[in-house]
Amino acid sequence: MAPGTSTETAAQQRPVCAESAPQAKPACCPYFHQAVELIGRRWTGAIVEILMQGGSLRFSTIASAVPDLSDRMLSDRLKELESYALVERTVFPGPPVRVQYALTQKGLELSPALWELGRWARRWLGTSA
Amino acid sequence: MAPGTSTETAAQQRPVCAESAPQAKPACCPYFHQAVELIGRRWTGAIVEILMQGGSLRFSTIASAVPDLSDRMLSDRLKELESYALVERTVFPGPPVRVQYALTQKGLELSPALWELGRWARRWLGTSA
Repeated sequence: MAPGTSTETAAQQRPVCAESAPQAKPACCPYFHQAVELIGRRWTGAIVEILMQGGSLRFSTIASAVPDLSDRMLSDRLKELESYALVERTVFPGPPVRVQYALTQKGLELSPALWELGRWARRWLGTSA
Repeated sequence: MAPGTSTETAAQQRPVCAESAPQAKPACCPYFHQAVELIGRRWTGAIVEILMQGGSLRFSTIASAVPDLSDRMLSDRLKELESYALVERTVFPGPPVRVQYALTQKGLELSPALWELGRWARRWLGTSA
């Protein structure tokens, strides 16, 4: 066996990107990479979580559901989520005019991934951790 | 109906934190929040993805699998993942001494969440997006 390579093992888990396996060398999937960094951006995961629970919500409802999140940051994050077509902003004509935010189909389909991550978090970061 | 609240809808999706539902107001799960921001930290998701595919890997193998990731950043991220007990560093006595990195059980159990996120990413960010 070549020194330095003998204990590198073959894939033990199903790869994140199905298209990339089987292969000799591990490789990073650019779509997964983009997704994980988008959802993991500061506060973004929490905002998506709140919209997943609440359906169509007003800015103030989202703001009050996420502790320590400033209005400025929430506004920036909602604009970013809109630009990725994960969130849709709807203006209801008044008076008074109301603006609400909801996940699009693209956003709603994050549910299985976020649910699995929540399950992992409760198991490994929860009170028993 | 009270103005401004009439179109806020009840939960449409299963909540990320099972313990938190059912409830009147959406609320952020601190464990989920911690998990999504840990995994979403710059490069962390990609590094975990590579270890998920490769089993026990050397530093240079991980570095070469993730484009644009500097050695300094990889070193920092691996130390962080070790501090959260997601990654285990093993020194194999030589000569030559070898150092390899592998996911712990805690890290491996991220597989369903990352796989679902990868599936979403291929569907929504892939060539058809």
